[in-house]
Amino acid sequence: MHAAVRELESEVGREALTVPLVATRAGVTPSTIYRRWGDLQELLSDVAVERLRPDTEPEDRGDLRSDLEAWAEQFFEEMASPAGRAYIRDALLGDPDGGNAGQCSAYAAEQIDVVLARAAGRGERAPAVETVLDRVVAPVMYRILFRPDKLDAAYARRLVTGLLDPADR
Amino acid sequence: MHAAVRELESEVGREALTVPLVATRAGVTPSTIYRRWGDLQELLSDVAVERLRPDTEPEDRGDLRSDLEAWAEQFFEEMASPAGRAYIRDALLGDPDGGNAGQCSAYAAEQIDVVLARAAGRGERAPAVETVLDRVVAPVMYRILFRPDKLDAAYARRLVTGLLDPADR
Repeated sequence: MHAAVRELESEVGREALTVPLVATRAGVTPSTIYRRWGDLQELLSDVAVERLRPDTEPEDRGDLRSDLEAWAEQFFEEMASPAGRAYIRDALLGDPDGGNAGQCSAYAAEQIDVVLARAAGRGERAPAVETVLDRVVAPVMYRILFRPDKLDAAYARRLVTGLLDPADR
Repeated sequence: MHAAVRELESEVGREALTVPLVATRAGVTPSTIYRRWGDLQELLSDVAVERLRPDTEPEDRGDLRSDLEAWAEQFFEEMASPAGRAYIRDALLGDPDGGNAGQCSAYAAEQIDVVLARAAGRGERAPAVETVLDRVVAPVMYRILFRPDKLDAAYARRLVTGLLDPADR
């Protein structure tokens, strides 16, 4: 089903997608989709969360600051890209119970956890995962959703600096 | 039109709204709505932004910390309420060009600006509006959208404390 949606998205475009179209491509009846997903928006939300799943571990650059800056920049680039913005919207919209939005946040938390565990392993002083979510992930996602103008990867890097060097505030 | 939507929301509920229903209540033809708003979601987005507009100035409690804590708690209570969550969703969903999401953020920035201008008038050292958006508004909105569990007004207050007392981090 996910593959059918992705193929059709690239062939006919996001706006032209319909449940019957996806059903035909996937070789099922529309009612199969309605039973499982309720409507197209919920199916697109599941597909979006799948696309937002990180496919690699955060890079190990040898110290917390470099790892966190590299991860924050990559997270920003992925989420702020046209595809990323569309997936975030889809994930939020067809998500009545909030489970898919929660999964997006869980993906980010898992990646940050890897970075922080590595830092702890090196004996570096590291913030809590929830603090990194508040100080780096939340501002990036908030600005992508609510103030997308003049955003760049340098902004994500500055958030990491502000977190690790409070004096720079 | 906004009044027609609000009346129908309370009478038949959000899910039962349709363009013909709103048109009849507002005494216009459905095509009038489609011409002006494109579809129901865009109309609901405009109505939601209108509902999210602050109707009072932030309270003046005499010092920056009290003003910002009070504002952050009220902002949290409004946005985290069932109605607030529904309006945030509506505002984001029927908003192809991002104008309505930007307006939501502008409302928060204007309120914060009032609080910070007052602090400056008292000779208090105050952070920049953009910093308050990153450190208080963004985490509140991010958690409402992506991790709604176990949120309370004390969380919003702690964000203000973390901003004004970096040592407490």
